[in-house]
Amino acid sequence: MTTIKFMPQGINVEATTGASVLELAQKAGVGIRAECGGRGVCGSCRVMVEPLESFSPPSAREIEMLGDDLDKGWRLACHTKVLSAGTVIIPLATRPEQVIVLEESYGNLDITLKPAVRQLFLHVPEPTLDNPRADGERFLQTFKSHTKKLTNLEHDILMRLPNIIREEKGQVTATVWQERKILDLKSGYHELILGIAVDLGTTTMVVYLFNIRSGQLLGRASQLNPQTAYGSDVMTRIHYTSNTKGGSTQMRATVVRGLNQLISEVCDKAQVSTDNVVEVVLVGNTAMHHLCLGLDSRHLALAPYPPVWAEPLDLPAAAIGMAVHPAANLHLLPNKAGFVGADSMAVLLALEPYLQDELQLIIDFGTNGEIILANSQHQWACSTAAGPAFEGAQIRFGMRAQNGAIDKVEFIPESQEIRWETIGGEPPIGICGSGIIAVVAALRKAGILHDGGRFNSRINNDRLRHGAEGMEYVLAWPEETALGEAIVVTQGDVRQVQLGKAALAAGCRILLERAQAKQPDVVLMAGAFGSYIDPEAAKTIGLIPALTPEKIKVVGNAAGHGACLSLLNVDKRKEIALLAPKVDYIELSGESRFSEEFISSTALVPWGK
Amino acid sequence: MTTIKFMPQGINVEATTGASVLELAQKAGVGIRAECGGRGVCGSCRVMVEPLESFSPPSAREIEMLGDDLDKGWRLACHTKVLSAGTVIIPLATRPEQVIVLEESYGNLDITLKPAVRQLFLHVPEPTLDNPRADGERFLQTFKSHTKKLTNLEHDILMRLPNIIREEKGQVTATVWQERKILDLKSGYHELILGIAVDLGTTTMVVYLFNIRSGQLLGRASQLNPQTAYGSDVMTRIHYTSNTKGGSTQMRATVVRGLNQLISEVCDKAQVSTDNVVEVVLVGNTAMHHLCLGLDSRHLALAPYPPVWAEPLDLPAAAIGMAVHPAANLHLLPNKAGFVGADSMAVLLALEPYLQDELQLIIDFGTNGEIILANSQHQWACSTAAGPAFEGAQIRFGMRAQNGAIDKVEFIPESQEIRWETIGGEPPIGICGSGIIAVVAALRKAGILHDGGRFNSRINNDRLRHGAEGMEYVLAWPEETALGEAIVVTQGDVRQVQLGKAALAAGCRILLERAQAKQPDVVLMAGAFGSYIDPEAAKTIGLIPALTPEKIKVVGNAAGHGACLSLLNVDKRKEIALLAPKVDYIELSGESRFSEEFISSTALVPWGK
Repeated sequence: MTTIKFMPQGINVEATTGASVLELAQKAGVGIRAECGGRGVCGSCRVMVEPLESFSPPSAREIEMLGDDLDKGWRLACHTKVLSAGTVIIPLATRPEQVIVLEESYGNLDITLKPAVRQLFLHVPEPTLDNPRADGERFLQTFKSHTKKLTNLEHDILMRLPNIIREEKGQVTATVWQERKILDLKSGYHELILGIAVDLGTTTMVVYLFNIRSGQLLGRASQLNPQTAYGSDVMTRIHYTSNTKGGSTQMRATVVRGLNQLISEVCDKAQVSTDNVVEVVLVGNTAMHHLCLGLDSRHLALAPYPPVWAEPLDLPAAAIGMAVHPAANLHLLPNKAGFVGADSMAVLLALEPYLQDELQLIIDFGTNGEIILANSQHQWACSTAAGPAFEGAQIRFGMRAQNGAIDKVEFIPESQEIRWETIGGEPPIGICGSGIIAVVAALRKAGILHDGGRFNSRINNDRLRHGAEGMEYVLAWPEETALGEAIVVTQGDVRQVQLGKAALAAGCRILLERAQAKQPDVVLMAGAFGSYIDPEAAKTIGLIPALTPEKIKVVGNAAGHGACLSLLNVDKRKEIALLAPKVDYIELSGESRFSEEFISSTALVPWGK
Repeated sequence: MTTIKFMPQGINVEATTGASVLELAQKAGVGIRAECGGRGVCGSCRVMVEPLESFSPPSAREIEMLGDDLDKGWRLACHTKVLSAGTVIIPLATRPEQVIVLEESYGNLDITLKPAVRQLFLHVPEPTLDNPRADGERFLQTFKSHTKKLTNLEHDILMRLPNIIREEKGQVTATVWQERKILDLKSGYHELILGIAVDLGTTTMVVYLFNIRSGQLLGRASQLNPQTAYGSDVMTRIHYTSNTKGGSTQMRATVVRGLNQLISEVCDKAQVSTDNVVEVVLVGNTAMHHLCLGLDSRHLALAPYPPVWAEPLDLPAAAIGMAVHPAANLHLLPNKAGFVGADSMAVLLALEPYLQDELQLIIDFGTNGEIILANSQHQWACSTAAGPAFEGAQIRFGMRAQNGAIDKVEFIPESQEIRWETIGGEPPIGICGSGIIAVVAALRKAGILHDGGRFNSRINNDRLRHGAEGMEYVLAWPEETALGEAIVVTQGDVRQVQLGKAALAAGCRILLERAQAKQPDVVLMAGAFGSYIDPEAAKTIGLIPALTPEKIKVVGNAAGHGACLSLLNVDKRKEIALLAPKVDYIELSGESRFSEEFISSTALVPWGK
């Protein structure tokens, strides 16, 4: 008896002399791949051993398959027998399917790693005079134990095949997409394959970089969607493409250039090459989906708003100009409708309301607000033009959420004061989206605003004054701000908040009516912006139902999370492809009850009051 | 009762007033497509009627589907009722599957038209507010009655889809490849689709242009393979690509440029656009196959001569630079081995020995001679380096088969004279391949050559003389030729013929041994060159078995014929894909009996003597 240590797990195993490394690993529960069942055919159980003399001499098969690598300590676990104490190192590629955990998000966190792309290390036999089979045939034969779906080779692979299979004595690494297409073929052993998940928002785009063989998140990066140069909202951009020759191409090139910058940045930081990025999964609303692919988005702006394509889509990433591996696949999740897009489907995947019995109301706050009401029985979705107020636009002192923006506002009953904080603690220069909701809620609590949204002119408060556009409330005095002038909330600002709030609340109510439910069991606030809204303030002004605090959850960038899940596990793509057609889409512009609900939702009062 | 005349068939049919045109055509046996069974759904029964007033007014469905075309006389046969005497014109696209006959060839002549590409005329419904389905979904729905295999659209089609389906009220013509890929999509009704069959020989390339909707041969064109600039034989070209950087690309570009010229020429003559060419089928020997695709051909020159790819292959014609429709498919028949290529498989398809009980010996004469011995039980194939003699090379006065070449030579026993003719009847400038075989046979008959190939110096003949390279026979005196010098046959020339003849005959004998047969039942001489050889001369020198004349057939360019069949009927591709692996390939260099057979075949005597 002797002892073998398995690395990197650090597990010590008692071993009988003569036992194979593979048997030993299997007995000890150390994960090791053996796709041919230990027959020495597939090469998937490649491990490194030390010292060499603690293990049996290489078999003829190992000499054929591993060649010079034997000297470096590489062996086939199935053909290597233990002679005395030693160490076995199991490289990443030899470890079986792994479960990985995504951080910083709510919802489906554990995921089994099952990417669309995998690598196979193969040994292609030489031709013989008796059986001078074609290079392609001998090569495809080696795949037979892995997949029978692969029967054809693309022209560019065929052009390189003869050299590749001869360069390292028949040893090749094939990068295979969905078991049926070879994306890349290299001689020798390789193991780095990367994937990119993209959440393409109207305003912001976020890129996640993964090692899709290990599931490890290698980095993330975000920036403003450069299409904002053509208009901050979707409609302006659609009109631009309709009215400009080559507008669709220009819009596509603009966003892809931005994505390429982000991908390059995140790869540089992780010290990997963009050429190893073999798959990209992208989610975005339907307009972003179309504008990124260069599809004609014009009809998204005209009733009945049909998308060009709603099914899941696979295309070469190179077709839209993405600077990744030239054969990389780009996958897009399905769009449900013109204004409920792949991003909402990704939110569904991330939060999985369709696996729950409780009725979840999911609001994805953005320039457009997408609303999902769902449980395991039924799923409804709609979209409302929540308006620009929630992003700080069309607000007198509105701004994006960056340093110097007032983002938190609170009414202190004891002192009857309204207190604020800024991002970064700097002197204020404006109010961001979460701040404007908070200040309206605080003004309501202080009794400074009526239910209907008018300022209460009878109240005695030195901050309430007449301004150029009517009544206004001084949130910060000139000497407190970085502007040298006062930051005020105008009657017009309050109206903007009311419009946005009414649209979202009316959408929620229509969905609840469809579900014949008075209240959801849970409210989930999603989206980068949704993560900053104070749930209490949102309840105060009736933006969301008045549930108890533990029933209201902030879930972060669920769309981006859903994109990551789809990148790491191909079954998730099937799941949402099956679910999407079942989601009940409500087109609010075709809904007679919408105007009524909208008007009755303008009041700044909690739900049910 | 009234009378309806169907055109272009010219059939007059008695009709009851009120009968539909479709019923009438079906009763009269006039072929007409009706893919939806006459429900007015598919639009496949589109016909033209005159005069308009002899037929019922258009139905609502016809107004929707045909629009302005109604004014031009277009109607749906299923919705149009007969009122009084008139004419119905059935356009090509409305006629069902046709059997066409290929001329100028031996073998499989009747073929059912079943091309890989077909056109569908469809009507895409508009989206509604109740059901705002995506453009892609509505479009694919219209395919459901035709094919369920089509579930995805390529990016370039998606980019154009919204405009195309709206331009002519939803009427579109889709060009579909193998029921699963859309090659082209246009608004309105179209019906011209073309196909090209290519026989790519080492020396000559031939292009056939077909209307693949009617099966009509629109033209053919041929020229020298421009790769001959890099060497007249396969080996020289392979060595060039191996020893030159970018040699494969250069060789591919050279041949594709030549093919593009031919395609352009044949399309110009037929007054059609190359952009309507939606499929190309190409056959050639394995080296031509590889050199045309830009594949690495180096290993074809090294034992055991494995091809890069032997299976049938489909790739975008654009991938190798063919100037046809940008989405056209290029199909290549399978290669059997390094020296029995797709051209031999096309010969099999054209001659169908595998459907016969008689044992056929098929010799495809060319720079390489491919030999097939086959019946319905078993098929064998081999290749021999027949040598350059049969193409007129390495013969003192050898030349290609063109004007002024001595191509026919005859021994007249009565006068003991040897008479010759030239191509075009012009004064001779040399001897082409068929001529050199004929002259050797004539010299044998005249007793001027011994069995072993030596000139008989004891014979008294003023044309037999000593030349610079030994004995030579004066075929034409200086005053008869256009050269001003005599055209002679040297001892060296006879040796070249013996070498080529021995290689071919040995190959035939090895195959016959494998088949345990003394003789084939039939000999088929294929290839452009094979068509000019005099079978009697070939028998005299023992090039082919000594069968009775009716058992020896000249079958023309069988490889080109096989390419045409594969273009016109996709089932033929399956047929050869299934057959090719069953063919028993004999690698003569691995055959111990070959040297012996070769040496014993050098004698210029008929088989069996």
